[in-house]
Amino acid sequence: MHETRQRLVTTTGELFRRRGFHGTSLKQVTEAAGAPIGSLYHFFPGGKEDLAEAVLLESGEAYRQLFELIADAAPDPATAITDFFDGAAEVLEQSGYVDTCPIGTVALEVASSNDRLRRASDRVFRSWIEAAAARFRAVGIPADDAEALAATAVAALEGAFMLARSRQDPAPLRTAGRHVRQLVEASVAAVAAAAATTTSPRARPSTKGR
Amino acid sequence: MHETRQRLVTTTGELFRRRGFHGTSLKQVTEAAGAPIGSLYHFFPGGKEDLAEAVLLESGEAYRQLFELIADAAPDPATAITDFFDGAAEVLEQSGYVDTCPIGTVALEVASSNDRLRRASDRVFRSWIEAAAARFRAVGIPADDAEALAATAVAALEGAFMLARSRQDPAPLRTAGRHVRQLVEASVAAVAAAAATTTSPRARPSTKGR
Repeated sequence: MHETRQRLVTTTGELFRRRGFHGTSLKQVTEAAGAPIGSLYHFFPGGKEDLAEAVLLESGEAYRQLFELIADAAPDPATAITDFFDGAAEVLEQSGYVDTCPIGTVALEVASSNDRLRRASDRVFRSWIEAAAARFRAVGIPADDAEALAATAVAALEGAFMLARSRQDPAPLRTAGRHVRQLVEASVAAVAAAAATTTSPRARPSTKGR
Repeated sequence: MHETRQRLVTTTGELFRRRGFHGTSLKQVTEAAGAPIGSLYHFFPGGKEDLAEAVLLESGEAYRQLFELIADAAPDPATAITDFFDGAAEVLEQSGYVDTCPIGTVALEVASSNDRLRRASDRVFRSWIEAAAARFRAVGIPADDAEALAATAVAALEGAFMLARSRQDPAPLRTAGRHVRQLVEASVAAVAAAAATTTSPRARPSTKGR
């Protein structure tokens, strides 16, 4: 990917984190990225909307990959959840409550005013939900429950970012991670209990037959 | 409260829901409210920031009162949670995914750029958390757990609004409500189990004594 294009996307993502979509001007972007406006329109002919779509999709994908890395390193999906939330809490605190999700603010700003960007946010959220749901299915949680749990995990993460930034305290992220973990563990336990119930009647007749 | 002042606050709240803080201009406010700009500065000498603070605090208080009404009508706090989330899902769907929380979008937009409005959002979120925590304490959940559950409930609500608006589907709100209810019920069950453990040794000697 072209270096200037990448710098424009990265810089815009940083500005979105601090000031949101409506609060970020193309002038601020070109100044912060050290790129002329002509260069911005070369890579993003549709201007701010094109650029914002690239920021949403590309930073959304980067966050998805981060989740996959954390989940690969964790012993189970319940631990992956608390690792991810605790990591987010740490990064947020270290950044002075600025360096947070580049999707959330923009997603809310554009939900009722820009359908193309609303669709891009939706696509990102769905990719995160699917990433978490796949981990939950892998430990036996039924597909519908896995998707519901994953949606609540993403909702709790985004809402906890909001509380943590307003309060300037990472505690809501750690708390939400602990609660989502509890839900995942309850689902895993329900699956294990159901498996014990359904396998024992099948096991019994063969024992009797011996 | 003066009628024009109230109309300015209500109109600004509606614009914030659709376009956020940075996306709303004072010109749009005065046009939509049918009030001259002089009238706006009469009631809000500090302009947009004064007006935004009033919107956050007053609509935050209205939402808190709505929660209290729903909780008063519900048989228990766990049901109050699903009633509130399901009600939010219904209103969101009926409004065409516009008429949603007037706090969330602004809270994210201002968290790193306007400390006065950040504090106002924090005050609102804290008042909601305390309202829910009081209901949880009333059924015996210890204060720390009650506050943690209430924080996760508010986080899940705000995040689920974000997903539901991006997806134009109220399902994430209903799902999150069901999950928060499950957490509340687990806490209530834990309290009941702990009470059974601590009361039974005391109960036994008296039974033996008969």
